[in-house]
Amino acid sequence: MQNRRFLLTRRPNGTPVEADFEHVVENVREINDGEFLVRNIYASLDPAQRGWMDDVPSYIPPIPLGDAVRATCIGQVTQSRSNVFKENQWIIGHTAIEDYTVCSDQHLRGFWAIGDHRPLSNYISGLGTAPMTAYFGLLVEGQPKANDTVLVSGAAGSVGSTVGQIAKLKGCKTIGIAGGKEKCERLLKNYGFDFAIDYKGLSQDELEHKIAELAPEGIDIIFENVGGEIFDASLKNIKVGGRAILCGLISDYNRMDDPHGCRAIWQLIVKRAQIIGINLGKYFGQADEAQKEIAQWIAEDKLKFDEHIEVGIENALPAFLKLFNGENKGKMMLQIQEDYKD
Amino acid sequence: MQNRRFLLTRRPNGTPVEADFEHVVENVREINDGEFLVRNIYASLDPAQRGWMDDVPSYIPPIPLGDAVRATCIGQVTQSRSNVFKENQWIIGHTAIEDYTVCSDQHLRGFWAIGDHRPLSNYISGLGTAPMTAYFGLLVEGQPKANDTVLVSGAAGSVGSTVGQIAKLKGCKTIGIAGGKEKCERLLKNYGFDFAIDYKGLSQDELEHKIAELAPEGIDIIFENVGGEIFDASLKNIKVGGRAILCGLISDYNRMDDPHGCRAIWQLIVKRAQIIGINLGKYFGQADEAQKEIAQWIAEDKLKFDEHIEVGIENALPAFLKLFNGENKGKMMLQIQEDYKD
Repeated sequence: MQNRRFLLTRRPNGTPVEADFEHVVENVREINDGEFLVRNIYASLDPAQRGWMDDVPSYIPPIPLGDAVRATCIGQVTQSRSNVFKENQWIIGHTAIEDYTVCSDQHLRGFWAIGDHRPLSNYISGLGTAPMTAYFGLLVEGQPKANDTVLVSGAAGSVGSTVGQIAKLKGCKTIGIAGGKEKCERLLKNYGFDFAIDYKGLSQDELEHKIAELAPEGIDIIFENVGGEIFDASLKNIKVGGRAILCGLISDYNRMDDPHGCRAIWQLIVKRAQIIGINLGKYFGQADEAQKEIAQWIAEDKLKFDEHIEVGIENALPAFLKLFNGENKGKMMLQIQEDYKD
Repeated sequence: MQNRRFLLTRRPNGTPVEADFEHVVENVREINDGEFLVRNIYASLDPAQRGWMDDVPSYIPPIPLGDAVRATCIGQVTQSRSNVFKENQWIIGHTAIEDYTVCSDQHLRGFWAIGDHRPLSNYISGLGTAPMTAYFGLLVEGQPKANDTVLVSGAAGSVGSTVGQIAKLKGCKTIGIAGGKEKCERLLKNYGFDFAIDYKGLSQDELEHKIAELAPEGIDIIFENVGGEIFDASLKNIKVGGRAILCGLISDYNRMDDPHGCRAIWQLIVKRAQIIGINLGKYFGQADEAQKEIAQWIAEDKLKFDEHIEVGIENALPAFLKLFNGENKGKMMLQIQEDYKD
């Protein structure tokens, strides 16, 4: 059985380029006892993958050079000698951008079986790492109360748009920051944000004042996906005792050697505020519970997800780069199997 | 009655200079009902005062131009039409660097009567803003457990040295960072730190590796007084789930237009760690309780304070600047009344 694979062959320096990767076709090996074979249908494309490409300590190991690029994928078990997953079962988990991944019962953290809801892609949009991160970050760490003001950067992204919607479900006032008119319209129309700020063309000072205009009492909860000047402008508006949930720093990911970091950190002292760093690893044990609640919201039509699906494994890198240049119009994913139909 | 006063007459740009201040002698005005007059004996000199000199929003208002420089002082009530403080009572509170301050019953936040313990200066060392900040920051926000590793920057300073000692009282392993051999010896000998790191001459990378050598398991609690490259090196050693108590950023205070900030903030995501900004304003209601416990520790000889007392109001600025160039050898204070004897 042939396996098209998208390999990481060199550690990217800044923005990844084609020469950092290789497309190959290999044969799938036989599975052993305690293993199962997954045919990957959709791969979630997430900014976090950029971090996994670097050889630096992180919450999960770097992608080894020569391995297929790790991704949260939805797929079907096509062969099984596993004690956990049976043949034909649909699953979501960390496999990779390739047709087939051999998985082991020994490494099932973050793998779970999924149900009958279709389109299948909604399981990535609604139950993948992005919405789960939104759920736990906002509810567990942010502890929003009704009438709190919640400011979300990267608000049109897959994490940000879910944060905004959950915050509304909890009775908060929501302000979303995104780049460009089209995204800002989406914030208001699709995700129910009370206000949208288009950061493009704004200086840091202008952004700071724009936030202050919309939230003269200050911000109770910042949900930060972007970092850089946007985070600085936001922090300058944080309320005394406020919390900034730090989920992503996408503006720094391709300049890690000389990151902007957080220049407004002084605000934390002035405002007795906190920055709470999160990654999904903290909540693996609570995933079932969160999935149930999110699935319920989806069923009740209380959560909407925009999906941006690019088709074909050969488009893996161009699709991934759209996360960074702002071209994605919803949860970015790659449909590896061109012929898949729900 | 004549009043020597140390006035702020211009907002400093970076490091304060003589031309930002004026020494004047004025007459003390009559006090009204609800007011009392304090004769200031000792003024605490703290890095926070630098922030109060800027016209920017902070946890307390800026020092108005033309006013005496605000300071936590110990003094004696020499006239009273107050309903709270009687004549001859010794008090500690926010007055200013001047012989006499007219105080009002309307603004008593942070004022309290003090007892008979002598030397009088110990009330600034042990019960002033610095040790109270250490107490609340470490115990309330850090929640240290026995065997936690606590890393303290600015560890020879008045906050840092108290943090180190309280952490030891709670059974923690303590690592202090300070500049120069003499200070590092003081950390080990006077404050009981388990390890001392002299950051002078170390690059950020070298400091990072030095910390890693002393705490291969990582740091549970960072108590940060300095910021800049020192904080970055420390954060890179924080444990998963660790906490950084952000108390001061002295390395940024004189470069606020272009602060270094925190370039290693990415660590918060990787390690699911937090930065908790503190200022004493959060704990005013709990001051009595903390003072009682600290006073008890002083009585039991469990806490030691080094004091650096400069004498004479004309030395206010040179003494203050020693906080920033590292020349202070303990809690820095100014003895305003040259002839005072315990």
